[in-house]
Amino acid sequence: MVPTDGSVVRPISRGLTLRALVIWCILLPFIRLSSGAKTRHFKWEVEYMYWSPDCIENVVMGINGQFPGPTIRAKAGDTVVVELTNKLPTEGVVIHWHGIRQLGTPWADGTAFISQCAINCGETFHYRFKVDRPGTYFYHGHLGMQRSAGLYGSLIVDVAEGEKEPFHYDGEFNLLLSDWWHKSVHEQEVGLSSNPFRWIGEPQSLLINGRGQYNCSLAAQYSNTNSSQCKLRGNEQCAPQILRVRPNKTYRLRVASSTALASLNLAIGNHKMVVVEADGNYLQPFAVNDLDIYSGESYSVLITTDQDPSKNYWLSIGVRGRLPATPPGLSILNYQPTSVSKFPTSPPPVTPRWDDYNHSKTFSNSIFALMGSPKPPTSYDRRITLLNTQNKIDGFTKWAINNVSLALPPTPYLGSIKYGLQNAFDQKSPPENFPDNYDVMRPPINPNSTIGSGVYMFGLNSTVDVILQNANSLSNNVSEIHPWHLHGHDFWVLGYGEGKFSAKDEKKLNFKNPPLRNTAVIFPYGWTALRYVADNPGVWAFHCHIEPHLHMGMGVVFAEGVHHVKSIPNEALTCGLTAKFLDKNRG
Amino acid sequence: MVPTDGSVVRPISRGLTLRALVIWCILLPFIRLSSGAKTRHFKWEVEYMYWSPDCIENVVMGINGQFPGPTIRAKAGDTVVVELTNKLPTEGVVIHWHGIRQLGTPWADGTAFISQCAINCGETFHYRFKVDRPGTYFYHGHLGMQRSAGLYGSLIVDVAEGEKEPFHYDGEFNLLLSDWWHKSVHEQEVGLSSNPFRWIGEPQSLLINGRGQYNCSLAAQYSNTNSSQCKLRGNEQCAPQILRVRPNKTYRLRVASSTALASLNLAIGNHKMVVVEADGNYLQPFAVNDLDIYSGESYSVLITTDQDPSKNYWLSIGVRGRLPATPPGLSILNYQPTSVSKFPTSPPPVTPRWDDYNHSKTFSNSIFALMGSPKPPTSYDRRITLLNTQNKIDGFTKWAINNVSLALPPTPYLGSIKYGLQNAFDQKSPPENFPDNYDVMRPPINPNSTIGSGVYMFGLNSTVDVILQNANSLSNNVSEIHPWHLHGHDFWVLGYGEGKFSAKDEKKLNFKNPPLRNTAVIFPYGWTALRYVADNPGVWAFHCHIEPHLHMGMGVVFAEGVHHVKSIPNEALTCGLTAKFLDKNRG
Repeated sequence: MVPTDGSVVRPISRGLTLRALVIWCILLPFIRLSSGAKTRHFKWEVEYMYWSPDCIENVVMGINGQFPGPTIRAKAGDTVVVELTNKLPTEGVVIHWHGIRQLGTPWADGTAFISQCAINCGETFHYRFKVDRPGTYFYHGHLGMQRSAGLYGSLIVDVAEGEKEPFHYDGEFNLLLSDWWHKSVHEQEVGLSSNPFRWIGEPQSLLINGRGQYNCSLAAQYSNTNSSQCKLRGNEQCAPQILRVRPNKTYRLRVASSTALASLNLAIGNHKMVVVEADGNYLQPFAVNDLDIYSGESYSVLITTDQDPSKNYWLSIGVRGRLPATPPGLSILNYQPTSVSKFPTSPPPVTPRWDDYNHSKTFSNSIFALMGSPKPPTSYDRRITLLNTQNKIDGFTKWAINNVSLALPPTPYLGSIKYGLQNAFDQKSPPENFPDNYDVMRPPINPNSTIGSGVYMFGLNSTVDVILQNANSLSNNVSEIHPWHLHGHDFWVLGYGEGKFSAKDEKKLNFKNPPLRNTAVIFPYGWTALRYVADNPGVWAFHCHIEPHLHMGMGVVFAEGVHHVKSIPNEALTCGLTAKFLDKNRG
Repeated sequence: MVPTDGSVVRPISRGLTLRALVIWCILLPFIRLSSGAKTRHFKWEVEYMYWSPDCIENVVMGINGQFPGPTIRAKAGDTVVVELTNKLPTEGVVIHWHGIRQLGTPWADGTAFISQCAINCGETFHYRFKVDRPGTYFYHGHLGMQRSAGLYGSLIVDVAEGEKEPFHYDGEFNLLLSDWWHKSVHEQEVGLSSNPFRWIGEPQSLLINGRGQYNCSLAAQYSNTNSSQCKLRGNEQCAPQILRVRPNKTYRLRVASSTALASLNLAIGNHKMVVVEADGNYLQPFAVNDLDIYSGESYSVLITTDQDPSKNYWLSIGVRGRLPATPPGLSILNYQPTSVSKFPTSPPPVTPRWDDYNHSKTFSNSIFALMGSPKPPTSYDRRITLLNTQNKIDGFTKWAINNVSLALPPTPYLGSIKYGLQNAFDQKSPPENFPDNYDVMRPPINPNSTIGSGVYMFGLNSTVDVILQNANSLSNNVSEIHPWHLHGHDFWVLGYGEGKFSAKDEKKLNFKNPPLRNTAVIFPYGWTALRYVADNPGVWAFHCHIEPHLHMGMGVVFAEGVHHVKSIPNEALTCGLTAKFLDKNRG
């Protein structure tokens, strides 16, 4: 089961010279062209529109009149060009291509104030990037809480022409999972930024491909809920996506989570799933009855339609890690030619108890890279430990990393670092650690938390270890799950552990077959150890993928080799000090 | 009653040479400095916040934590500097200084996509302009429908040091009127831009200085309404502003309307009002029992506190011109030392019937310039007639002027015209007239309405006549009131008439003492004739001041002498093609 796809790019070794890198960058397009790579053009307009994602009419952020946005489908090696026009009346917009590493195109990463200026009202930005590696990805807004407003869609990269996946399947389905609130994100944002703080609460609905049901259940007849049976004709915007399958076949489900908050568990009645891909990286296949998926993650699972073909089966998603106040999201696996209107005879799978973290840890600890996958360097050049705490700063509730809550500056780092604009952000590097005596089991007592915009600068091609350290939040006996997502790279997930990371934990780390991911969770009161090679010149967000947490400052900024970044398009730098800098340097 | 204030700037005659203009511009600051003019600095931050304008909590756009925004108070000849920082999470912002002509500073007019780029999130723009003339003004957002979101405040210019107003008063009050919806402007905007169209409906409340009451009445005991008596302790955000007066004095009420939709009528129980100022221009004083005020207008009225001092009196505002679905806004005139808690013995004044247009016309036709005010040139160089129609364009409901519905381009006109960027907007001049056989009494039959961004270009210092022609809207037997507001200038209101303007109407025009205004209404099925001198180099919006109407395209763009505009600050042109142009011309 070694991947036969040549597009699994091995990380550039630390010893690589700049010259080699440049040559590699120059050659790469030609290598791809020889395998029939294409440029795929998309013209998109982002605008608000009325929509009923959960059968309740609301306003969503749509693309070309669609919610979720159009699915991008490309082949490994292709170049994707998205001409994105902002048709919002007053807001800027950007789109992040989640999981695409943007090798050589850091300005196309779509992170407002990090990789580019927000695209102004009425203007068009040209995202142009290579999708170098097959996998299950998605895209979403990365300004304010626009992802929560519905700005997301799927991005699927197939193997290059003539290549094969390391597993077989007869058909596939694409399931983009999200959560949905009835309160507008504008109002959610005001609450999060207010003193007293107002939390957004649990989502009203869970959506599968933008479809869910509020205040009714597809499966009311099975559940002891107060919800009534949904009366859907099937043509509603909220009507569930039906997975139409033939018996005795193998199907690939591509599952990605763009939730704003919810950690999810997915299961299909009577069907086991074999997990084969995570975040665009092949895994050592393993079978599960249910799949935990955190915001920012993607998986491919294979299912075999070997059950009674005269029946239909529920596919269910439910909330994990928070006391659920949201009914499960449901879809139906429909064996052809059985009628889709024939109800499954068994109730939908039950989501594991929300606080059964052992279940989650067992799942996470079952994930290993497929044999033959790139291995991590055997040692690191620099290690930083990032303590995750909830803090009060001037009366406002924030999240802080090593006591610094991230507030992005109005000038994108990519421009300000490249052009040496020292007033653009805090020049002092943020802390790389936290005091030894910090008690992760108690609410934070440190009153010195600050708002900051500093950057962790790493040597180009250096190997970086990041220890994510969870802790108690502001409330007693509360520690939450945080899925951390890194832009511009994958990292190896070396391991998870309990309590405070210490020297004795070193030997528990997996250097043999750790999975490559772009998102990894920290469990309550636990730590997660990551390793990656800083081999992609640019500035990269690394943050909790829970939308309100990021809005409350739960992120850091990594940078490497920015001076090697060439030709940042002007359209990426029309704001803040970069705009003034460019002005000053004209005529 | 000739104004003793030397700051009444006479319009520059058409014969004035450019050289004279330049000399005048150079000398002006020194003239002012000699009379003790000051620079008044303000540091403002715009952000969303929770507020209860009508006792119902909602989100408003506030400045420095205040709603309405802080009042600017300056003296004629002063320079006002507002450092405006955008603290909104995703939206741009601008502020228009309504009634300030921005002589020589067209880039400070605060109109997004016309005079400047929207200020990006996190950035600061420096508004710097001279307030050359005493009067009652206000300021407000001019991007999307941000004015409706609550972005407004008062701007009061007193006479210069040592100067006197042409009337006496012992004290003054400042009443900024507005209307308020419970639905967010973001959602209002989506409805207006959707097909099928969704109208915003009538406001939930009328506000006086940002204070109103929803679902209760201050004067419930008098009215046959279902509302209950408001239970206010007086410290609520919605508690009415009390006008505390002493007996037998004269007070100036400065009244300005920033409503999104409502035309208003203001009256005070038992007190006549003498109207003395409109839009910063002195009027021939005249007495009224009630005052019609349209969105974009301001008035000063004098009241004499000659009534029974042991009583209090209602000040009331009610809706005109649309079937009212909004209860009146109320405030109390409190004779000191009578307790404010003593209820007026009479009910609040009753607003004239909403469709009693004769009442409104009588009022408008009573407005004349104070003797000695500047008179209009006796002839015009160019006359354009602007037909106001409601149209369907590709299924969307729009307003159009001579069949063109205005859509602003992403590049501010001031920059694109100055730098000759021909792709920035429609280069074809919009129509100056409409077909002779157009029937203004019937719904529009012309199917050729288009969306456009063209500009009316006028010769510098030319005299322009504008005939605003009202017509039937899309519904039978409906023609609405539209208050048209001109930026950068005042115009003389030469007259109002019924039906279609024709040659025979010429002789009805008033060239003797027409009032100077910046806003003038067109009555249903009527016309309004305006004259102004295009003596202020720049690009200027001229539009219906009803916020949703402007959003639906009800405006035009005027430009004059743009090549004489010097040194547009770079911070005004960081977007669109101007940004690209400035980029291209660097290094």
